[in-house]
Amino acid sequence: MSDARDFSVTTGPLPASKKIHIPGQMHADLRVAMRETALSAGEAAVRSYDPSGPYTDAAEKIDIRQGLPPLRQAWIEGRGDVEAYGGRTARPEDNGAKPDEAGAFERFSRGDRQPLRAKPGKCVTQLHYARAGIVTPEMEYVAIRENLGRMDERAKDPAPRDGVGFGATIPDVITPQFVRDEIARGRAILPNNINHPESEPMAIGRNFLVKINANIGNSAIASTASEEVDKMVWATRWGADTVMDLSTGNNIHNIREWILRNSPVPIGTVPIYQALEKVDGKAEELSWDVYRDTLIEQAEQGVDYFTIHAGVLLEYIPLTAKRITGIVSRGGSILAKWCLAHHRQNFLYTHFEEICEIMAAYDVSFSLGDGLRPGAIADANDDAQFAELHTLGELCKIAQRFDTQVMIEGPGHVPMHKIKENMDEQLRHCDEAPFYTLGPLTTDIAPGYDHITSAIGAAMIGWYGCAMLCYVTPKEHLGLPDRDDVKTGVVTYKIAAHAADLAKGHPQAQTRDDALSKARFEFRWRDQFNLSLDPETATSFHDQTLPAEGAKLAHFCSMCGPKFCSMKISQEVRDYAKAGMEEMSQKFRDGGSEVYRKDSKSEEKLDEAV
Amino acid sequence: MSDARDFSVTTGPLPASKKIHIPGQMHADLRVAMRETALSAGEAAVRSYDPSGPYTDAAEKIDIRQGLPPLRQAWIEGRGDVEAYGGRTARPEDNGAKPDEAGAFERFSRGDRQPLRAKPGKCVTQLHYARAGIVTPEMEYVAIRENLGRMDERAKDPAPRDGVGFGATIPDVITPQFVRDEIARGRAILPNNINHPESEPMAIGRNFLVKINANIGNSAIASTASEEVDKMVWATRWGADTVMDLSTGNNIHNIREWILRNSPVPIGTVPIYQALEKVDGKAEELSWDVYRDTLIEQAEQGVDYFTIHAGVLLEYIPLTAKRITGIVSRGGSILAKWCLAHHRQNFLYTHFEEICEIMAAYDVSFSLGDGLRPGAIADANDDAQFAELHTLGELCKIAQRFDTQVMIEGPGHVPMHKIKENMDEQLRHCDEAPFYTLGPLTTDIAPGYDHITSAIGAAMIGWYGCAMLCYVTPKEHLGLPDRDDVKTGVVTYKIAAHAADLAKGHPQAQTRDDALSKARFEFRWRDQFNLSLDPETATSFHDQTLPAEGAKLAHFCSMCGPKFCSMKISQEVRDYAKAGMEEMSQKFRDGGSEVYRKDSKSEEKLDEAV
Repeated sequence: MSDARDFSVTTGPLPASKKIHIPGQMHADLRVAMRETALSAGEAAVRSYDPSGPYTDAAEKIDIRQGLPPLRQAWIEGRGDVEAYGGRTARPEDNGAKPDEAGAFERFSRGDRQPLRAKPGKCVTQLHYARAGIVTPEMEYVAIRENLGRMDERAKDPAPRDGVGFGATIPDVITPQFVRDEIARGRAILPNNINHPESEPMAIGRNFLVKINANIGNSAIASTASEEVDKMVWATRWGADTVMDLSTGNNIHNIREWILRNSPVPIGTVPIYQALEKVDGKAEELSWDVYRDTLIEQAEQGVDYFTIHAGVLLEYIPLTAKRITGIVSRGGSILAKWCLAHHRQNFLYTHFEEICEIMAAYDVSFSLGDGLRPGAIADANDDAQFAELHTLGELCKIAQRFDTQVMIEGPGHVPMHKIKENMDEQLRHCDEAPFYTLGPLTTDIAPGYDHITSAIGAAMIGWYGCAMLCYVTPKEHLGLPDRDDVKTGVVTYKIAAHAADLAKGHPQAQTRDDALSKARFEFRWRDQFNLSLDPETATSFHDQTLPAEGAKLAHFCSMCGPKFCSMKISQEVRDYAKAGMEEMSQKFRDGGSEVYRKDSKSEEKLDEAV
Repeated sequence: MSDARDFSVTTGPLPASKKIHIPGQMHADLRVAMRETALSAGEAAVRSYDPSGPYTDAAEKIDIRQGLPPLRQAWIEGRGDVEAYGGRTARPEDNGAKPDEAGAFERFSRGDRQPLRAKPGKCVTQLHYARAGIVTPEMEYVAIRENLGRMDERAKDPAPRDGVGFGATIPDVITPQFVRDEIARGRAILPNNINHPESEPMAIGRNFLVKINANIGNSAIASTASEEVDKMVWATRWGADTVMDLSTGNNIHNIREWILRNSPVPIGTVPIYQALEKVDGKAEELSWDVYRDTLIEQAEQGVDYFTIHAGVLLEYIPLTAKRITGIVSRGGSILAKWCLAHHRQNFLYTHFEEICEIMAAYDVSFSLGDGLRPGAIADANDDAQFAELHTLGELCKIAQRFDTQVMIEGPGHVPMHKIKENMDEQLRHCDEAPFYTLGPLTTDIAPGYDHITSAIGAAMIGWYGCAMLCYVTPKEHLGLPDRDDVKTGVVTYKIAAHAADLAKGHPQAQTRDDALSKARFEFRWRDQFNLSLDPETATSFHDQTLPAEGAKLAHFCSMCGPKFCSMKISQEVRDYAKAGMEEMSQKFRDGGSEVYRKDSKSEEKLDEAV
């Protein structure tokens, strides 16, 4: 079990990009990180939202054994409402070892850090602060981040709005006050456990940029801790806004610690997975005590949101009997099994208020799990699914009474014509609390391509109002994703989220599209590659047929070749139109009437390139 | 130029699949080809629509030098309205050679076949027959094909309908009469040039299965004839319903002949590309005579549909001046250049009726080109685009007056919230003539992934009523697609088309989804792979972590491992529910309360697999 010894992660900026930091106005010590991509030809640099943290900052030194700097520590402690305490004592079974086995796994260790929790009588959630009218540094960070640091210029000169919002109310400028309002209203969450000070504040809500989550984690069959830390860094490099650690094998406490201490994004988990490991896989031996212990263990480590399947009620289980694929949520099936074995109500439901109290003490956000989500086109939008959703709506209200932040999980497998009903039901029953969906997959006939079957559904539900999209990789249903799959999944979901932002009419979403389109039209190939979600792939695809450096300046590519490049001809057409048609027409005839006049520069480049 | 000598194409059925042939009822000599995939565990075989022709039929011998058997020849000749004639004399410049160069390219040669055309005073289009009340063998072929040969059983026991059609009127059973009605109404086309008797009849229309097109063709930079024939066969293997040959370099007459003689699907072209080659790339030297000569040349060869950019009117060109990416259609930009050089109206517009007469004589269908389609998110749905679309609507009516079949091409680059407007405008102005769109791409920020950015838009517009989706490969904007790109593009677009069929509520679309979902739930891994759009990829992804044959029977995969497989637990939950909860609960406790009881078979398999 030496897998912690050989950590290696990908660092350094993306091509032509650098990390910039925007200072706060209300909170002077804020340094809000974002990416800036330099362009050629005098074009303005393009900023983009960037969850990759210090790993893409050339100025930062990364040491996985030290973890990231605790960015938020001073803000958390500065509020005076937290206390350090001894914390729960680690046990061998936290890592899946039997009580009599040695805990042989290497632990992350950074001095004698003690966990924090709310002082007695205090509440430390961002929802609590928001309701009290406090704009926290976290909230201002989010505002600057969502605006890409352009608050003042955008307030003066708002971008023209275009889009269909289905009830979204995205303002021209995201102010810190707006962030506060949305959190107070329960329409957004800012998942930031006080024990995960390394994370950069971000918001999930329908009136913010659509976010994406990447799932990582080992299974009993494959993968190690170093691989999972690498995948976490890799996923954020390509744009994952949060990461869920779904590990289920041995060593999971330690893997989680390595991930948390090194993660610039919020980390989510499904605590029932570890609880089940603690009772040696025997679902009927699950108990409130074991589960509660696991919640505290993970809250002390710093997990930012918990998937909790409290809506899988005993009486809903028979509703899944006639489905083609029954219950496809792992947590849902475990709890269904517990309920049936005991013929008792789901203990997460009966202990829900105690769960709220625990989560409020650390500001862990709820991600109310959809344990009865459909796992097949045939099972979409059925009674089981919507019965659970309505219960999640009730639980959402209870959680918010405890000042805990809440989002709601959603499906799954849904044909296109049933997607909007999912979103509308969720908005209605959960009072616009953020929706967080897996896909949904819009057909079941393409295993191996479920990143695509689901990106279609994800883009649509993002448009309709979904706040965060859980990625699906090409390996879905087939195996554990590797590094390449993680990247493909993240880039695919960035596409879905961005397409949704465009369609909702997010005021700044189109800036990057326009910059890239312009670069394309002007044959600034390097700029086109650098503005792409994946500069490496764009460059390598281009270079497969035209590898020479000169081709990066050529006024064509191998798709159409120089004579048939519409972009090239169109630029000439534009020149004609500008100069006045008749005049240019004459000049053209005088000039020898060659449509494809030799552009000596690009022809030379062609010779060199082909 | 020996590239015709080393033809090699991929043949043979897909795994567990075979070609079956359904006889006609009205026309006894029909043998309608489709694919049937055998399943295990006594499950009924699943039929699927299959455009791959004889190449996937184990009983057929393929000889590229002979071409495919002329399936439709007897029907065409049997109608007594065609005549063979000497045909146009081939010229060196047909292949891009200068008149004084030797035509050094190898020609396809199958005896002394003469082209056919309509006898004087006769019309040979399927639209003409349909209007005359004739149900041709081609129409019955389409009906049987669209029903997957299940007319009788479906008529007796129609599948329950589910979906949102936006005005589509898909019946429970596609009858030959319905095919006739739709063609007569101009709402569907059956593109089948009388000189391409090798093709299997298919229909494009909003009330039929959504079709996809794959573009192939060389450019001046890359690719040869044998590569293009291989790509054509390869594209149809994965599901391309039509193929466009967009070749623009030398040797294009011969490449086209090789493709046509070997293609089981309709072939489309953009004749202006070859016309431009004939005038040595000088757009202003294009003339009606050169273009007319090219139309006849290609019609005699058997091209099934022509993209004709007759809606690029002189007065619309200035409307593109303020666009970010101007004119991105190759044909559109060539014609814009011609119009400006001469300051005259587009000659395709002024000669439109003569074009109709030529195309009617061979039953070449129109694909009215959208030369002014947007090439960037910023340019979507602008005045230039819609002005042209309205003109295409007028031209559509003129073409139909000549009994020529017509479909309309559409964009391009369109954010999600503007897609439906495209479809609605097209339906309104073109009286429901089939719409045939490229994507549309829903964002511009992901070169290298434009199969995905566009699959989102394609699925949506297919749902809204688009009849055929032109694929986009990962190489779009970057280079000429290779074999892998073609496959990725086709599979991605099969996903989009199928997702659209599901959402529209096509009565049989869900059959394959349900069969695959059931196989998944029952851990019939082989069945799951075989029902996938791409069995090879699904199998290889699974085998990356669990390569052993035993894992194909295991009740889990490496994604979650055996303990956390929700499908496995869910099957157990279902057993409980079936047996009565209380009883099973007791039995469970009596049995030692092991949730994950050792299933000796699957545990053994696991040992073997890991």
